[in-house]
Amino acid sequence: MSRFFSDKFSSLTPYTPGEQPKDRRFVKLNTNESPFAPSQKAREYAATAAKSLQLYCDIDCTKLCEKLARMYGIKKENVLFTNGSDEALNFAFAAFCDDGCPAVFPDITYGFYPVFAQLNHVPYEEIPLNEDFSVNVDDYIGVGKTIFIANPNAPTGIALSLSDIERILAGNPDTIVVVDEAYVDFGAESAVGLIDRYDNLLVTQTFSKSRSLAGGRLGMAIGCADIIRDLNTVKFSTNPYNVNSMTQAAGLGALEDQAYFEENCATIMENRAYLTRELEKPGFVTTDSLTNFVFVKHPEIEGEKLYRELKERGVLIRHFTLPRIKDYNRITVGTKEQIDVLLNNIKAIIGGY
Amino acid sequence: MSRFFSDKFSSLTPYTPGEQPKDRRFVKLNTNESPFAPSQKAREYAATAAKSLQLYCDIDCTKLCEKLARMYGIKKENVLFTNGSDEALNFAFAAFCDDGCPAVFPDITYGFYPVFAQLNHVPYEEIPLNEDFSVNVDDYIGVGKTIFIANPNAPTGIALSLSDIERILAGNPDTIVVVDEAYVDFGAESAVGLIDRYDNLLVTQTFSKSRSLAGGRLGMAIGCADIIRDLNTVKFSTNPYNVNSMTQAAGLGALEDQAYFEENCATIMENRAYLTRELEKPGFVTTDSLTNFVFVKHPEIEGEKLYRELKERGVLIRHFTLPRIKDYNRITVGTKEQIDVLLNNIKAIIGGY
Repeated sequence: MSRFFSDKFSSLTPYTPGEQPKDRRFVKLNTNESPFAPSQKAREYAATAAKSLQLYCDIDCTKLCEKLARMYGIKKENVLFTNGSDEALNFAFAAFCDDGCPAVFPDITYGFYPVFAQLNHVPYEEIPLNEDFSVNVDDYIGVGKTIFIANPNAPTGIALSLSDIERILAGNPDTIVVVDEAYVDFGAESAVGLIDRYDNLLVTQTFSKSRSLAGGRLGMAIGCADIIRDLNTVKFSTNPYNVNSMTQAAGLGALEDQAYFEENCATIMENRAYLTRELEKPGFVTTDSLTNFVFVKHPEIEGEKLYRELKERGVLIRHFTLPRIKDYNRITVGTKEQIDVLLNNIKAIIGGY
Repeated sequence: MSRFFSDKFSSLTPYTPGEQPKDRRFVKLNTNESPFAPSQKAREYAATAAKSLQLYCDIDCTKLCEKLARMYGIKKENVLFTNGSDEALNFAFAAFCDDGCPAVFPDITYGFYPVFAQLNHVPYEEIPLNEDFSVNVDDYIGVGKTIFIANPNAPTGIALSLSDIERILAGNPDTIVVVDEAYVDFGAESAVGLIDRYDNLLVTQTFSKSRSLAGGRLGMAIGCADIIRDLNTVKFSTNPYNVNSMTQAAGLGALEDQAYFEENCATIMENRAYLTRELEKPGFVTTDSLTNFVFVKHPEIEGEKLYRELKERGVLIRHFTLPRIKDYNRITVGTKEQIDVLLNNIKAIIGGY
């Protein structure tokens, strides 16, 4: 820390992203990336956009908004595109939380929520998940705080039903409920259809997982026009040109290639079932994941040990040090081939204990 | 504003970017874009990067940092790449300003500074420029505040000498001096060479103007390792993957094509001289611009009127409504052909008065 750094950030602890090793080829199952390349259309549109980068990008992401609005049956005033959904979440912490309206989220969830709260000087409360890592919906009724719910949750993979989400919305008519749907495309139910009925609903989604654009950085916030306007006030005071031309183009291409998207999501769901089944055979405990990852522990090997031994063998998975989940690992659902490499290595490791 | 929007932003007035009309082809000289396409290398590298977007981008922008460090004779720990230089400026307002250390900048300068100050809840002071729009360096000695100086300044185009910048640095050893060099490549002197001697110096630059990547969104902050580390603390608490893979690739390509960059900057400087000369002939008053724009007024036609009449004729320039500069317009230096279209239209308009 330099002698100039503002005291207000003296206790700010940044988010720790998953490892992105540069030195060695790993079977990389640690950051929930898609194993599939972006749609051909996404790549072509991006390459075309690259030719005209001397001009500023469209600050309104007009084509993306119009396309998504048609697909989702909403209006373009209901959506804001962002530099990854992290930016949408950060804008929401800025816009809808303060001393009078703290943030609240589960104790086990996306690790960036407490960081965004600290960054924005927002008090926050963490509500413990049930023993089985499910959300106790009653805990979120009438809390008088801005609620952040990842659905499905990460790193547990467990989803709430749409009726549970609606109970939370109806139970908090005077505060915003942010439903972070980063992983919704792998089998869970989206709350987007509720935005007309609940003016306190903000849904965030990302192109990073199901649309293979993690490196392109495209996310979005969806809600009633009034709260999207609030987020735009923050955006236009932060970085009006937040989504560059190539990413806008790639996102449009990805949206236009719905068949490829659906095929890839279906493959991931099939592979998830296969991976889960194969991990349960030698005794792994799993959650009912509706995401592109599984969350697992084995009664006979510590989570960190498994993570380390797999890493030595060239397979990267994600381990968290939070006490409640330190026995677990989060493993991205890759291709069948990647899964088999993982399983063979796990068998070799477990055989040694 | 929705009923959920935090009171802390009730008086936040977003930045107003230059017009980006979608409905009609204009000769667009209003947002200081380059008239030249990005380097062939930038386009090719970006297109290649688009093929692997399923993987997250490099959070450290390693290749960009290493390349820039070699070119500038600095270390990679001295640079942080950002989603446009606006993001670098915002991070600086967050990291180095607070109630105890307000911000200070000229009354006539980049219009985003007061917005960043409001966004970050930072008090700020505006110091009037001299009558001729030059900075009075003495006003900035020992101010006890974080100083933001655009050099050259916008929209005036006027640059401070390196010795003046050094006087400001030496005169404020205990506060950060941010030198915003968005337009430095068109003839002004960069302060980058001073970072080893002044630990209070932060330089920001952009690829938007001289490297034809406005739509790619790439900027950077350069300073001693300690203050770059502070900015990284803010970045990793905001958006670790802030610069997407395609932009990193395009930026690298642009840096590798130094000849193209130099040729384009030289052409802009030549065209600026031509435009200035031709505008002075019918009586326009100009400043001594060292940027890719000129800042001009005519004694017989109001600034806004000229702007409006040119717009009707299909030529866009930038008009500001601030009282001190309302008689002026900022005109981007385009190609010779664009300049001639502008000049012919101006002649036609002025002839009518």
